[in-house]
Amino acid sequence: MIPIADRMAHIQPFYVMDLLAKARRLEAEGRSIIHMEIGEPDFITPAPIIHAGEAALAAGETHYTPAKGLPALREAIAGFYAGSYGVDIDPARIIVTPGASGALQLVMSVLINPGESVLMADPGYPCNRHFVELVDGKPVCVPVGADTGYQLTAEIVEAAWRPDTKAVLVATPANPTGTLLTLEELTALHDTVSSLGGLLVVDEIYQGLIYDAVGGTALSIADDIFVINSFSKFFGMTGWRLGWLVAPEAAVGPLDRLAQNIFLAAPTLSQHAALKAFEPEVLEILEARRVEYLQRRDFLLPALREMGFELPVTPQGAFYLYANCEAVTDDSHAFAEALLEEAGVAVTPGRDFGFNRPEAHLRFAYTTSLPNLEEGVARLRKFNRL
Amino acid sequence: MIPIADRMAHIQPFYVMDLLAKARRLEAEGRSIIHMEIGEPDFITPAPIIHAGEAALAAGETHYTPAKGLPALREAIAGFYAGSYGVDIDPARIIVTPGASGALQLVMSVLINPGESVLMADPGYPCNRHFVELVDGKPVCVPVGADTGYQLTAEIVEAAWRPDTKAVLVATPANPTGTLLTLEELTALHDTVSSLGGLLVVDEIYQGLIYDAVGGTALSIADDIFVINSFSKFFGMTGWRLGWLVAPEAAVGPLDRLAQNIFLAAPTLSQHAALKAFEPEVLEILEARRVEYLQRRDFLLPALREMGFELPVTPQGAFYLYANCEAVTDDSHAFAEALLEEAGVAVTPGRDFGFNRPEAHLRFAYTTSLPNLEEGVARLRKFNRL
Ligand SMILES: Cc1ncc(COP(=O)(O)O)c(C=O)c1O
Ligand SMILES: Cc1ncc(COP(=O)(O)O)c(C=O)c1O
Repeated sequence: MIPIADRMAHIQPFYVMDLLAKARRLEAEGRSIIHMEIGEPDFITPAPIIHAGEAALAAGETHYTPAKGLPALREAIAGFYAGSYGVDIDPARIIVTPGASGALQLVMSVLINPGESVLMADPGYPCNRHFVELVDGKPVCVPVGADTGYQLTAEIVEAAWRPDTKAVLVATPANPTGTLLTLEELTALHDTVSSLGGLLVVDEIYQGLIYDAVGGTALSIADDIFVINSFSKFFGMTGWRLGWLVAPEAAVGPLDRLAQNIFLAAPTLSQHAALKAFEPEVLEILEARRVEYLQRRDFLLPALREMGFELPVTPQGAFYLYANCEAVTDDSHAFAEALLEEAGVAVTPGRDFGFNRPEAHLRFAYTTSLPNLEEGVARLRKFNRL
Repeated sequence: MIPIADRMAHIQPFYVMDLLAKARRLEAEGRSIIHMEIGEPDFITPAPIIHAGEAALAAGETHYTPAKGLPALREAIAGFYAGSYGVDIDPARIIVTPGASGALQLVMSVLINPGESVLMADPGYPCNRHFVELVDGKPVCVPVGADTGYQLTAEIVEAAWRPDTKAVLVATPANPTGTLLTLEELTALHDTVSSLGGLLVVDEIYQGLIYDAVGGTALSIADDIFVINSFSKFFGMTGWRLGWLVAPEAAVGPLDRLAQNIFLAAPTLSQHAALKAFEPEVLEILEARRVEYLQRRDFLLPALREMGFELPVTPQGAFYLYANCEAVTDDSHAFAEALLEEAGVAVTPGRDFGFNRPEAHLRFAYTTSLPNLEEGVARLRKFNRL
């Protein structure tokens, strides 16, 4: 018997992993499975980034970097904000991390005392609440619905605020809903959170993966917002484990101190490769991929709606569709299991994203080719008719 | 003003970073600096591992892996224990992590409740106490000296035990002292810790870097020991951020759950490259490096002793010499600063390693070539005479 810490009672696994494991088993048995459960690009990393990785290997770049990251990469990230959003960020405020995961962990660990709470949207990215649980804070999963585009608003935050609330975490575009916050909405959130004496954390990991809307960054609003980002999704670099954090100047010292101690540094090779990520030739590849995601969304979304799945808000970003499936089933988990086993289509049941009517929701990821999506939809139609 | 969490008051930076920064500044001004402060191999990663990394890049291995790591790598690690130490480990007990750092974080976060204490040797690896502080546990830095080879013993642990003690963390070989624990000593530690109802965690990151002694693994003693390891030091892969953890079977579920949430996975490319780490051609390169470290130690150790530094125990592993410098200075920090500025030699003052008479100690790392060490010693001699 190993006496496990109490916090682990609040840290759930990704339930979809069981489903994924079952999918892999079925595939090993020769079954064809259409994967719409996977939260990462199907594309591999753009070739120029891979080549930069090869060059770094050939140059023997295999030692630790500074904890905050290669100065050249931090400058490249600052250059990206200047070039893409016209926002001037001092590279001194940028900390390169092992993925957005590392950035989320740093922020929550540096800000949250045991017992302090963090407000976040439910449904939301499952790890968010666990970064808070890790340091014995209290994640407050606030139910949100289609009426606010599945996002927290200034009003919701004000109503949900508690004496122990220290911070509010939002994501735009969001996982699992693919919905955005406009700069106006973010500004209102920031005003409210600030007036309540709290801090705003904005996860922009799906920045760049935006379809018929205009993108932005919370950094254009104020200097005291914590902004999280990553090379994982838009840049197609999930396996490289590289992200970043832009922090208010006063927080950089403690964040650096913690990063030094718990990470030492982000992977060196990944940092050298990512130096190429903002180059025009890469951005061109990423734009072509964005257009492809858009085509996939524009195929999958109406197809789902036609089958009786409800998506009252058109998701404008990321690569997810979060569908209300009440018209089709009253148990999304059982539905997903049956769909996988009987029809060979893998999707993610709501359960992984929180406590806000998960049984009534399914997440469809369009991280597979259009032909695959077409086949998936055909199977879904057949399954759904039974 | 950003309200920072209380735990950050207990998390110190690596003080040597300021020294390193000053060293780099001096180098930029054209000064020659001999680096004996750096805690990583000067060698780059062995060529076969680099080539495996290149092959993985060419094959487009850029997606996330399972949270516990590639099954093939976990099997290779099990194979390494079988081949090198004759110990049979179920790969199911092996979790691949972002460095030993990731493994240390997982273990402490999964085991330690706020207020629970972890005993560790002082001097010791500075991050150890911070992994405990991160989750609001209490690191208890137990002073150890030359009489026990700077290691905790069963007797010391018994005397230091507190009602809130949950675990004991040791390292063999250790940083900063380079000293070992024999399997007999580890067995006695394990017996005592178990009889007191606690858990033993053994950091074997410098395993393989052992000179005139026989190596071993705590895994040969019992199944309920947490063993931490890494590709960083012996395998020369610091920048790849890859390590592993062998855990008691009952702890694997919670550890996996936490790894899923806070890391997602270790870097993919690093995992593919590390598949080559245990191959004979790599082990041959590593053996040649081990012999070179040994030569360096055998040059530096007597040279330091001759100058009046005291090293009552001959360090048998890692690449560090932890010297008592009382005969030379009563302020190791000021000495290190002057040594850098006036003589162009960088070493690490005791301050980074705990609270046990840090002003009386300096760490010399032999992570630079023999000619560099010779030059460093010549400068040190000249400086010391003044
Ligand atoms: C909203 C959100 N934030 C953060 C992450 C973490 O990604 P990474 O650590 O790969 O950057 C993810 C991954 O799925 C995500 O969906
Ligand atoms: C004793 C000890 N443990 C763990 C680590 C962490 O190393 P890594 O995360 O690179 O594996 C170090 C690094 O210096 C160390 O000296």
